[in-house]
Formats: sequence, structure tokens, C-alpha cells
Amino acid sequence: MSRTDKDYEAQKEKLIHIALEVFIEQGYEHVTMTQLRKAFKLSVGGMYHYFSSKEEILDVVIQYGIQTLIEEAKARIATIPIEEKLLNLFSDSSLSAFVTKLYQYTDDNKNSLVAYKLREQSVNLAIPVVSEIFQQGIEAGIYKSDFPEEMAEFFMLLTKAITETNFLPKADKSKRKKRIEAFLYMFKVAINPPVNQIDQMRSAFDYTQ
Amino acid sequence: MSRTDKDYEAQKEKLIHIALEVFIEQGYEHVTMTQLRKAFKLSVGGMYHYFSSKEEILDVVIQYGIQTLIEEAKARIATIPIEEKLLNLFSDSSLSAFVTKLYQYTDDNKNSLVAYKLREQSVNLAIPVVSEIFQQGIEAGIYKSDFPEEMAEFFMLLTKAITETNFLPKADKSKRKKRIEAFLYMFKVAINPPVNQIDQMRSAFDYTQ
Repeated sequence: MSRTDKDYEAQKEKLIHIALEVFIEQGYEHVTMTQLRKAFKLSVGGMYHYFSSKEEILDVVIQYGIQTLIEEAKARIATIPIEEKLLNLFSDSSLSAFVTKLYQYTDDNKNSLVAYKLREQSVNLAIPVVSEIFQQGIEAGIYKSDFPEEMAEFFMLLTKAITETNFLPKADKSKRKKRIEAFLYMFKVAINPPVNQIDQMRSAFDYTQ
Repeated sequence: MSRTDKDYEAQKEKLIHIALEVFIEQGYEHVTMTQLRKAFKLSVGGMYHYFSSKEEILDVVIQYGIQTLIEEAKARIATIPIEEKLLNLFSDSSLSAFVTKLYQYTDDNKNSLVAYKLREQSVNLAIPVVSEIFQQGIEAGIYKSDFPEEMAEFFMLLTKAITETNFLPKADKSKRKKRIEAFLYMFKVAINPPVNQIDQMRSAFDYTQ
């Protein structure tokens, strides 16, 4: 990256942090591009150098937040044995202040566009990581599937669905437990993991309930 | 239902139709409660007799649209043999003018809150129908599962994911075909349908691509 590219990226990162603050203070739905531009301390021309719409700013804010989590998870699992990688993805990570604020905002606005987009990107951006774990696991002989990439997609979508409240109808505790058991059955037949990994996965989910 | 209840429901249905027109003309994001109230020709007090927020109006519009589809599908499958019910759900139905307009609006605004909510409700409201088909099928000996309700949830979520473009990352034609095959494998192990049902399901999906 050239000096100019670096400056541009550093400046854009600053704007992403400011944008999140503005969304939290004013609400994404209500804030205007003009208000964002003023918070960024940019001219009209300067603004379009970085973002062309409010929705683009939201997408970039969400991607920046999730990407932070993914990069951290990737670094964490890079050096551990393959059979521990998948479960480690679900272990607690220390969230950055940015990600904590983003989660707080969507917790407070569960049915907002921000929440829907965050959920969607949490699934989509994690798929390549899970897909790589499945493919490595198949090579190492601990998983078995003809569709590692697609199983990673379904795995992420279903884990999100059983741990969140919005993808599927609301559920009480006993219903959630049944969903977890049904999911673990699907996990077993989808990728044929070692038995102890199913038990570990069950504990990981119970912990989050 | 008393005369008054009937009047109330009939009037509310009229307002739902007007609301959709207003959303299409002005955009859900931009329209205000005052504009909706004026289109409804209601006083402030009259308005709160029916709806207390713009988001509630959206939720009711979407539920009304999807419920129309579900009721029609339920009537269609009520009298056909159990082994044909599931596939029949995916067959073309004649959409009402209301549902056609609603779909057109979300097609034109793919990343809007309206589109996210429509997708979510399409999954959630269809689950009881699929769940009943699975349960009837298990009793009739053509399906096998310990989790008919949960498999209906996963089934609806995954069929939506592989036929829509928004639940999972964008995919070209060959990738979509692979997703369908992975889904059919999951369908097979989830509920153990007769072999010809898997083939019929494959044709139904190919048709939609």
C-alpha cells in the first residue's frame, strides 16, 4: 500500500468509528447524510470520496465490526490442532470497544435494519472460516462430507438461528433445548464429526442459553 | 365475531391495503405516521384505535400478505394425499394483487427492512404447515424423525436460503446447484423421505433457478 492509500484507509477507519457514534446517538433510521458529513467534518466533495450513501456507511460499519471478530478468531485458531478449531470459534473472545457498542446498539434495536444486516453479515463473513475448518478436517480424516463449503453455510445459518431469537419464531427454554438437539443431529449427519465433538458442541450451546 | 368486531376487521383490512399503496408510493423508510393517518382519513384518536406505530403497520401488512398465501396453500393441500403435500407447497399459486405488489416492492428494495421482515415472516409463518405435514407423514410411515417441528424450522430456513439471494452469500448457477444438492442430502437425512420425493424436490428447485 502506498503512503496515500494508507492515509486514506486510516482516515476511513476514523470515519467508521465516528459513524457508529452518530448511529447510536441519533438512530440509523433518523440520521441524514448531511448530519453524518458534518460529524465527519468533511465537505460535500470530501464525503463522496469515502461514501456515496447512508446505507453504504452502515454496510462498511458492520463489515468493519464483524471483520475485527473474524480476524481475531482466525489468529486464535491458526496454531491449535484441527479437532479443536471449530469449537474454539464459539469460545468467548474479548470484544473490542467498537464491536461491543455495535452489539449493544442492535440489542437495543432488535428489529432494526442494522440488526438484520449485522445478523446476515455475521453468518456470511464467518462461512469461509468454517468452510476451511471443514476442508482441513476432511483432509485430516476427522470429518466426512461431499459438500464442505455448503455444510459451512448451513452450519452458520443454523447455529445463528438456534442461538438468536430472530431467525426463527420465539422459543422458551425447553423448545430451545430441542432445537439444539435437532441441530446436533444435523451436524452429525452433515459432516460426521467425532462423537466427543458433538458433546462439546452441546455444552457450548447450553452455556449460551 | 360480533357485528362491531366484523366492522373493525373489515375496516382494518381496508387500511392494510391503503398502507401498502402508501409504502410503495413514498417508500416505507420515508413515510411518516401523519402521512399514513391522512391516507387512512383518520383522526389522531381514530388512528391509535388501529395502529400505534409505523413498524406495527408494516408488520401487519406483511403478516396479512403471507397469511393469504398460507391459507391458500393450506386449502390446496387439505384434500391431496400426504405424500404429495410437501411438494405441492412449492408449486405455483395464483398470487393476489396484494401479494404481487408486496413482492414487487421488496424486489425493488432488496436490502430494505421490508424485505428482511418479509423473508423472516415467510419462513416463520410457513413452519406450522410444514411441521404438520412432517408429523402426518411420520404417522403415515413415509417420513422418519424424532424432531418433526425442528426439522420443519430448518427445512423452511434452508429452502429460503437456497432460493433467495440474501440469506447466504451471492452464488452463480453452478454454486446454486451445489447448494441444492447439499440441501437435498440434508433433507434426506433429516426426515427420511421416499427416494422419488427427493427427485421431485430437485426438479422443483431447478425450475425456480
